Amino acid sequence: MADALTQLKQRLAKVTDIERVGRVLSWDQQTMMPPAGSRHRADHVATLRRIQHELLVDGETGRLLDELQGLATDPDSDDGALIRLTRREYEKAVRVPTDLRAEMVRAAIEARPIWVKARSESDFELFRPALERNYELRERYIECFGNVDEPYDILLDDFEPEMTTAEVREIFAELKTELIPLIAELRNDAVDDSFLRGSFPIDAQERLAKEVVGLFGYRPDTWRLDPTEHPFASGAGVDDIRITTHYDSETMKSFFSTMHEYGHGLYSQQLPRHLERLPTGGPCSLGIHESQSRLWENLVGRSRPFWHFFYTRAQETFPRQLRTVELDDFIAGINRVQPSLIRIKADEVTYGMHVILRFELEQDVVNGRVAIPDLPDAWNEKMHEYLGIDVPNDAQGVLQDTHWASGSIGYFATYLLGTVMSVQIWQKILEDIPDLEGQIERGEFAALRDWLGEHVHRYGRKFSPQETLRRATGATIDAKPYLAYLREKYGAGVAA
Amino acid sequence: MADALTQLKQRLAKVTDIERVGRVLSWDQQTMMPPAGSRHRADHVATLRRIQHELLVDGETGRLLDELQGLATDPDSDDGALIRLTRREYEKAVRVPTDLRAEMVRAAIEARPIWVKARSESDFELFRPALERNYELRERYIECFGNVDEPYDILLDDFEPEMTTAEVREIFAELKTELIPLIAELRNDAVDDSFLRGSFPIDAQERLAKEVVGLFGYRPDTWRLDPTEHPFASGAGVDDIRITTHYDSETMKSFFSTMHEYGHGLYSQQLPRHLERLPTGGPCSLGIHESQSRLWENLVGRSRPFWHFFYTRAQETFPRQLRTVELDDFIAGINRVQPSLIRIKADEVTYGMHVILRFELEQDVVNGRVAIPDLPDAWNEKMHEYLGIDVPNDAQGVLQDTHWASGSIGYFATYLLGTVMSVQIWQKILEDIPDLEGQIERGEFAALRDWLGEHVHRYGRKFSPQETLRRATGATIDAKPYLAYLREKYGAGVAA
Repeated sequence: MADALTQLKQRLAKVTDIERVGRVLSWDQQTMMPPAGSRHRADHVATLRRIQHELLVDGETGRLLDELQGLATDPDSDDGALIRLTRREYEKAVRVPTDLRAEMVRAAIEARPIWVKARSESDFELFRPALERNYELRERYIECFGNVDEPYDILLDDFEPEMTTAEVREIFAELKTELIPLIAELRNDAVDDSFLRGSFPIDAQERLAKEVVGLFGYRPDTWRLDPTEHPFASGAGVDDIRITTHYDSETMKSFFSTMHEYGHGLYSQQLPRHLERLPTGGPCSLGIHESQSRLWENLVGRSRPFWHFFYTRAQETFPRQLRTVELDDFIAGINRVQPSLIRIKADEVTYGMHVILRFELEQDVVNGRVAIPDLPDAWNEKMHEYLGIDVPNDAQGVLQDTHWASGSIGYFATYLLGTVMSVQIWQKILEDIPDLEGQIERGEFAALRDWLGEHVHRYGRKFSPQETLRRATGATIDAKPYLAYLREKYGAGVAA
Repeated sequence: MADALTQLKQRLAKVTDIERVGRVLSWDQQTMMPPAGSRHRADHVATLRRIQHELLVDGETGRLLDELQGLATDPDSDDGALIRLTRREYEKAVRVPTDLRAEMVRAAIEARPIWVKARSESDFELFRPALERNYELRERYIECFGNVDEPYDILLDDFEPEMTTAEVREIFAELKTELIPLIAELRNDAVDDSFLRGSFPIDAQERLAKEVVGLFGYRPDTWRLDPTEHPFASGAGVDDIRITTHYDSETMKSFFSTMHEYGHGLYSQQLPRHLERLPTGGPCSLGIHESQSRLWENLVGRSRPFWHFFYTRAQETFPRQLRTVELDDFIAGINRVQPSLIRIKADEVTYGMHVILRFELEQDVVNGRVAIPDLPDAWNEKMHEYLGIDVPNDAQGVLQDTHWASGSIGYFATYLLGTVMSVQIWQKILEDIPDLEGQIERGEFAALRDWLGEHVHRYGRKFSPQETLRRATGATIDAKPYLAYLREKYGAGVAA
């Protein structure tokens, strides 16, 4: 059995290596690659994905798993977790033909430059064929799993394993019921945040982004920070962390985006080193990943204690915009509740509705209730219904996100799940580190980093997302703490 | 047979894809990767190399080649060339265990950051164990080929296929005999080139580098130019070309280096598109590659016609250094013959001796005549013997090049072979385009680019380097045109 375990680990190390190479190539594609290179990249990544898939679904993987099944019952050990996770991945993968897997990745890579062009020209029709192709391939992917009650489960599971559409729908229903009236109550057109628009020189933004990442804490020989179109975090392992941001010279949104990606980067850095070439050494799920990024972006980065410490640095960096703005007014401005068009620029209160909209539309397409040519209209109607705003063009509507272009259908829900979980985690940290706000006021983040490493990051992907959350906080996902946090922070009345 | 051909091409497309991914990862490692990422990169590239090797040496490759052997006799067809080349690569690869192949690439990646540190600290002892490991692995590699008369042939063939050490030695012997007295005759300590040292702001150098690449001609959506420690060209295919340069604020060497890498980039861009996922679609050899880079760097970039056109741009870009320098003095300065320490900064006349020194030392190590701990002394002695200069420290001596760190032992000879071939090619172009110098004086490079595409680049790797040169120029490699060119350009007397 020791031999079988070694053999399985060697096989999975290869699978993991190829996965990581894919991440570097994806980073490269989004930051560095000459645009015309997409054509080659599609070939190359399809080949890698094919090889990775073949290694995983090989009969030998199944044989080794059978031989090692006895280990799977140990609830805590690394090897038990490895067998359970690999069994789950294997059972999913064997249903999917290699050709389809390769085709999905190829179509996604080919769609990306088309999306970039379509968005810049606000031309949905240009993007439509590529989007249809991505959805059509997901349909074939879902079919591989036979008759399922809820086809969308298949897509969701690739991003948030072991969570069903029904479960998400229930959480989102609770959020929706509360958020719509909360937005109406909290939206504040009177707050002056005009100082957040104007002239924010990009070189100054870059300096400040690097400064805040340095303040939060990272190892300079293992990180890099680059500009990109649509911010993301990636990397090749615990010692190769790559975060990105998008600089817009008229706003300082890049600063919040950088704190967000820092949260992803720190998670990647503190994953379990002793499991680094195994699937269990990766991040748990996108929801857990997002709980980390939202925690740094919002619970730290939009908080009074943080700006108490950092505001003079922001004023020094953007004197023209902020010199005459008082701290209280700045904090009110960055926390202004105001329905807006773009998800990644949304405030904490309206953010959820952007995600719910996408979660619903994806299911509408998958279940045939909305045809892809009608997506822009469906999008615009929901934006009106949920946030009361009219979408002036598709670039600021249905074309705004890169996810559908890159085939990430089923991904969006994890943003809101992560946001909800971030508050549950934060409340546990406040219990464990009573002086947390004082530390943040003094610009001290080591205890926070260590807590996250110890209670979330070090589990890697050993457990399901909900089991990971339970180990960190004592509870599984619950929308109430998040709603209570919003009410308290934004001073709303008692909920209806 | 059509089926077998399709199957073989599919298999080779995978092998080629992995090869190209390796090139992107290597570019990333040298330009972008956080330094601590080497550890992951070694795992990842070793895994890719292992998979690539296994795909190639698989019995199925041999079976398909046997079935298709009949095609190999066609001297001109794409398929004939493919079978011949693949047979050759296959016969070499099957002799080498996969573990050794993976180990070679891993050791090379691990050695690189050690070399970077050792060079920056001028500490050969720090680098020695990694270098010994690389040489030891090459020894094991050579052993895979059984009893060979000339062990170094095995290494050389990986960089300049179908050329033997004896052949190179003969060409280099002729060069050495002529170059040593030529250097003594031509070295000109009287030429004032002091304006080439001083203050060359890096942002101005970057602008000028981009300008000259634009002038020579490239497709902006397919190229990028980045700074690095040791300049190189790479990329993922004809539509993803990446060249690099090293900026030193005290000199304008980066300008010549950029023209050099442009030559590599143009070759990569004009390789045969219809063969792009096959081994025959790659570059022919490193010698042929270098003939292209040296052609743009020296025959264009150090010529009077080019500077007639471009000098005012250089003056405008570096006014502090060049405003008062006359064109004739500038041309004399950039062509000053002067023995110096660093190969990549050497003038055209002394350059060859730098290469010959490395070619000889590599053989001395492989054949056991020099032990690795004695390499610095052996290096310094030869530098004194060949160029009459004393090496002040190992950073400017044995540690100056990255090649040995990256396991590229057997590579250096191709620099001089390429330089020699570049002159043969240039003379043929002058015959075919009598107005070439006039075009260069007017800043017109399209005809030159097209000639190279038509007579060199489009063959890709269909033929051996010497057959490619013969098709381009009517002759195989010959040192005489190169020596005659040096004498004519530098105004030497009749050779002894």
